[in-house]
Amino acid sequence: MGRRSDRRRVLRLRDGVATARPDTLAVEEPLEIRVRSPGGAGAARFVTTMRTPGHDEELVAGLLFAEGILTARDELAALERPADPRIEAELRANVLVASLAPQALARAQGLQRSTVMGSACGVCGRTEIGRVLTEGTRPLDSALSVSGELLHALPARLRESQSVFARTGGLHGAGLFDASGRLLELREDIGRHNAVDKLVGAHWLAGKLPLSECLLLVSGRAGFEIVQKAFFAGIPVLASVSAPSSLAVELAEAAGITLVGFLRERRFNVYAHSRRISAP
Amino acid sequence: MGRRSDRRRVLRLRDGVATARPDTLAVEEPLEIRVRSPGGAGAARFVTTMRTPGHDEELVAGLLFAEGILTARDELAALERPADPRIEAELRANVLVASLAPQALARAQGLQRSTVMGSACGVCGRTEIGRVLTEGTRPLDSALSVSGELLHALPARLRESQSVFARTGGLHGAGLFDASGRLLELREDIGRHNAVDKLVGAHWLAGKLPLSECLLLVSGRAGFEIVQKAFFAGIPVLASVSAPSSLAVELAEAAGITLVGFLRERRFNVYAHSRRISAP
Repeated sequence: MGRRSDRRRVLRLRDGVATARPDTLAVEEPLEIRVRSPGGAGAARFVTTMRTPGHDEELVAGLLFAEGILTARDELAALERPADPRIEAELRANVLVASLAPQALARAQGLQRSTVMGSACGVCGRTEIGRVLTEGTRPLDSALSVSGELLHALPARLRESQSVFARTGGLHGAGLFDASGRLLELREDIGRHNAVDKLVGAHWLAGKLPLSECLLLVSGRAGFEIVQKAFFAGIPVLASVSAPSSLAVELAEAAGITLVGFLRERRFNVYAHSRRISAP
Repeated sequence: MGRRSDRRRVLRLRDGVATARPDTLAVEEPLEIRVRSPGGAGAARFVTTMRTPGHDEELVAGLLFAEGILTARDELAALERPADPRIEAELRANVLVASLAPQALARAQGLQRSTVMGSACGVCGRTEIGRVLTEGTRPLDSALSVSGELLHALPARLRESQSVFARTGGLHGAGLFDASGRLLELREDIGRHNAVDKLVGAHWLAGKLPLSECLLLVSGRAGFEIVQKAFFAGIPVLASVSAPSSLAVELAEAAGITLVGFLRERRFNVYAHSRRISAP
């Protein structure tokens, strides 16, 4: 696993007093994702994303799953670092090659080529929601029920386990909890979306989706794409310590997801499907 | 300008007491950016980004500038909503068509096509810094000097002017200040990067770059791309209320940018080029 934090000398000013001291930073490095057919020679770059090293395989699986490129587990034949000995180790650590089944590879290529269009196309919130809830997709109907007291306890549990955040203040966390409020898994990353992709990717790789009896807590805001990732993973309750966006609320409503925001200081708001929050 | 906030009925739980009440949400909607040659018929989709409506022209200009597609002002011939009457007004509000000079259009197309590669390529932090500081580019050498007291005053000034944030808690802010600490311009968006693109785009459109005598304050974390945007805009002092990443610090060092982090509660850290912070 790559370094997740880095030490630097910084100048600290506090009430006008300057001191030079070491500081710990969250590491940010690019990760290049390439796709190819199994045994194929040339790999094409799919995307380069800035991320905190660590759990890279999970990040790639989660990202390709969230983009709708990977569906069934057997569509991913392999996830490997480039074998070419001409590549320096430092560069190799920032590249992952995904070997995809033909239909998944075609989806990846289609996504990259879909740039030319008729002038009558357009996008809006409804369009985006329609891309997530395609025909035949059903909203989540998990009967999971959680109490307000259980929700109040989650942020502290996430923070206690966020070891790198504690030292850098620079990483987002995504925590998966069971119905009793136990933290099952935590991922951290400089990018909010990456932390969720790593978490979902880990379970997708292990064949453990959908997560119908779980809660997801994210340390930042809940935008449209975070709700989309929760939906694809089958997670019925999504909580954020901060604000959701308008479109996140609309998607949560349509997707059957209980969306909780501003979960802090013994309060929270429920923006969609409050039926899963049991009365005190 | 589109709606930037939206009212919704939510269930609020505070200390176990539930009340239904209206809540204000930050609006998130997709914006599709298309590119074409001036007078050209077919426009190709360049990218779709999730953003808070408002200042869309500035966002598109700032994004194309940050991506290195637009350099000189006359490379952007026009920025228009699609004229096709078949498109509903709601969709039209989420599309902008940029008419680009041939060399800029070629750069946009090149960026989209650069997916096939030899197996010996790779990326790392150095590669990314090299893409920003290309040969012949010089680090910023502005002689701007600011005091710690001036920096301490900025976050409150940004917050006072963040009208939508105050109601939603859901928008990032980017504020441009002059050397005396006066707020010149503020942009807000659900996306941290978008807020900076809008701010820089406004000045690029007005032919007012570089901003060599200005400070930029962002409400979130300072990652690599935020430093990159500040560098392209010629802004010598970048401050964030939160943590920078390792690569943001490395780029700031190489690019001659004074990088301030954790600017809050009468303290801050200086991560690069502290020479522009004058002694108390």
